[in-house]
Amino acid sequence: MTPLANDTLLRAFLRQSTPYTPIWLMRQAGRYLPEYNATRRRAGSFLALCKNPDFATEVTLQPLERFPLDAAILFSDILTVPDAMGLGLYFAEGEGPKFERPVRDEAAVARLDVPDVGAQLRYVTDAVTQIRRALGGRVPLIGFSGSPWTLACYMVEGGGSDDHRTVKAMAYGRPDLMHRILEINARAVTDYLNAQIAAGAQAVMLFDTWGGSLSAAAYRTYSLDYMAQVVRGLVREADGRRVPVVLFTKGGGLWLEAMAATGCDALGLDWTIDIGEARRRVGNQVALQGNLDPTMLFAGPEAIRAEVGRILAAYGHGAGHVFNLGHGISQFTPPEHAGALVAAVHELSPAYHGEA
Amino acid sequence: MTPLANDTLLRAFLRQSTPYTPIWLMRQAGRYLPEYNATRRRAGSFLALCKNPDFATEVTLQPLERFPLDAAILFSDILTVPDAMGLGLYFAEGEGPKFERPVRDEAAVARLDVPDVGAQLRYVTDAVTQIRRALGGRVPLIGFSGSPWTLACYMVEGGGSDDHRTVKAMAYGRPDLMHRILEINARAVTDYLNAQIAAGAQAVMLFDTWGGSLSAAAYRTYSLDYMAQVVRGLVREADGRRVPVVLFTKGGGLWLEAMAATGCDALGLDWTIDIGEARRRVGNQVALQGNLDPTMLFAGPEAIRAEVGRILAAYGHGAGHVFNLGHGISQFTPPEHAGALVAAVHELSPAYHGEA
Repeated sequence: MTPLANDTLLRAFLRQSTPYTPIWLMRQAGRYLPEYNATRRRAGSFLALCKNPDFATEVTLQPLERFPLDAAILFSDILTVPDAMGLGLYFAEGEGPKFERPVRDEAAVARLDVPDVGAQLRYVTDAVTQIRRALGGRVPLIGFSGSPWTLACYMVEGGGSDDHRTVKAMAYGRPDLMHRILEINARAVTDYLNAQIAAGAQAVMLFDTWGGSLSAAAYRTYSLDYMAQVVRGLVREADGRRVPVVLFTKGGGLWLEAMAATGCDALGLDWTIDIGEARRRVGNQVALQGNLDPTMLFAGPEAIRAEVGRILAAYGHGAGHVFNLGHGISQFTPPEHAGALVAAVHELSPAYHGEA
Repeated sequence: MTPLANDTLLRAFLRQSTPYTPIWLMRQAGRYLPEYNATRRRAGSFLALCKNPDFATEVTLQPLERFPLDAAILFSDILTVPDAMGLGLYFAEGEGPKFERPVRDEAAVARLDVPDVGAQLRYVTDAVTQIRRALGGRVPLIGFSGSPWTLACYMVEGGGSDDHRTVKAMAYGRPDLMHRILEINARAVTDYLNAQIAAGAQAVMLFDTWGGSLSAAAYRTYSLDYMAQVVRGLVREADGRRVPVVLFTKGGGLWLEAMAATGCDALGLDWTIDIGEARRRVGNQVALQGNLDPTMLFAGPEAIRAEVGRILAAYGHGAGHVFNLGHGISQFTPPEHAGALVAAVHELSPAYHGEA
């Protein structure tokens, strides 16, 4: 493999010194970019885009052509794993993801098994290898997966949900079934991320989009414990470098100490927590990624720059901050505002690095 | 007025000793009750139900006939205030609240003014008086309003929103307009709650449903500061008794200390925070209301009882806890499960009161 020209992201995830604060954007390859929409039209559908390594490579690299981002992130969907379990992922027009065969009863839970990642998710690992080649060492490539609980939410609900009452009714009423699903998901996610690392992912992130819908106690039992199991099972080194692991629970600001104790390298923060307060709470245990409110990008470049300044100052001097949004970039974002964000981070952040 | 037979709620809100932990349920008069749906059909629509004091009184009392709840809460909508400002509230079938004339530009903001509560919201204060009479001193009546920020979310978005990008773009891009709206809302909400107190409300609650969608910094500026202004403007005594004020920001678990510092009497908690941790953080400053996950009511009575036990134990011994859900009860809840919840709280809580 070509040596990495810009390793700022990997260093920041490990709290090593960097000349500036690296930045990437959750969902940076997405519908706010006209070139992404053009490729998607050529592919025919979102799933076709995900399942074809050529298309996935193309869209993964698109935001890097526009903006001097410090990382690429694998273009894929968080529901590839349950799809590989045979649940039949599909996207109804304008409705978000759905499963043809949701896991709602004891028989469906009994049928569930860990997929053969090498065979059934080959299109993902092929994309990882191809993206690494296409990147040619410019910036590192981040792999990712949905968390065991977040996957279970979709698997049991059969799609998105406002209140997750089907999956929570199972968790609270039939914890035995819920734990069986989560155990399988944790093993599948571990295999999946290890396969991505073997194929070339240089950091990996667990997206726990729905952990924040749980009570504090249920979060430990149904989400965090299984993420910790995944973290313990990951291969943490590749090409002689540590592969950082990032945990992101949306709405998880109350639980940072417990998340940091899983042994991960970094925590993703949504925008509801002050990043300075988060840093005081986790100390030197982990790096922090975040945490601009994505809707801030609907304000103008000056407001964006001011907010970047506020967040950098809140984190303060020193290593361990990876700038990002607190959630995925909205499809309605003007691309030039994303550009203004990247520029502001690169321009304002060197003051917080180097000699104090 | 008849003396209050059960003042457990008012005492608990003021952290005075009680023989057990009082309970009421957010949205306790609602669609999960067949008798509510029957009255609503007779009224013709949700808004007709809200705007007619006879119907509002009828549905307010319905849950008290079924369950030995320790409070009644005024049946109304959180959007009565912007409706009284002339924005034209309506409910599209299956779509939630909408405004005919959203407040989207400088001209619309300039036209906005504090409504004449005595005239335009007379139907609400009439309902309060009538409900007090119908209650005959059984339990206290809670009045309420949406928070200035939460009202602004609906006023600017023109209805519900997943990401609140219109209102946030205004807050971040044109803070002058946003502050003018919030200033008007804060004065209107103060007048509105004071009118409810004058008409007989014995406690009042501010519902800040969307404060949790803001960043920590923006929450202070756009939501909390205006709630604090409302709290300062409220009449805090009626019939020789203190009128407790409760603040509830959904998703506000990170900001409890700042919320407690507004001078309110109690904080509502959603289910994402451990209530014991919340108590340690706010100390003796305020009482705490909460915090069962409403979807827990989809599990059976035994699971509900176990979770009630867990929450009571987490709060621990002593005064200052009002049991509630962490958010409104779901329309799909089996009514007998709500009954199991009320029974469990009344049965298990005396152990946490009296001599330690």
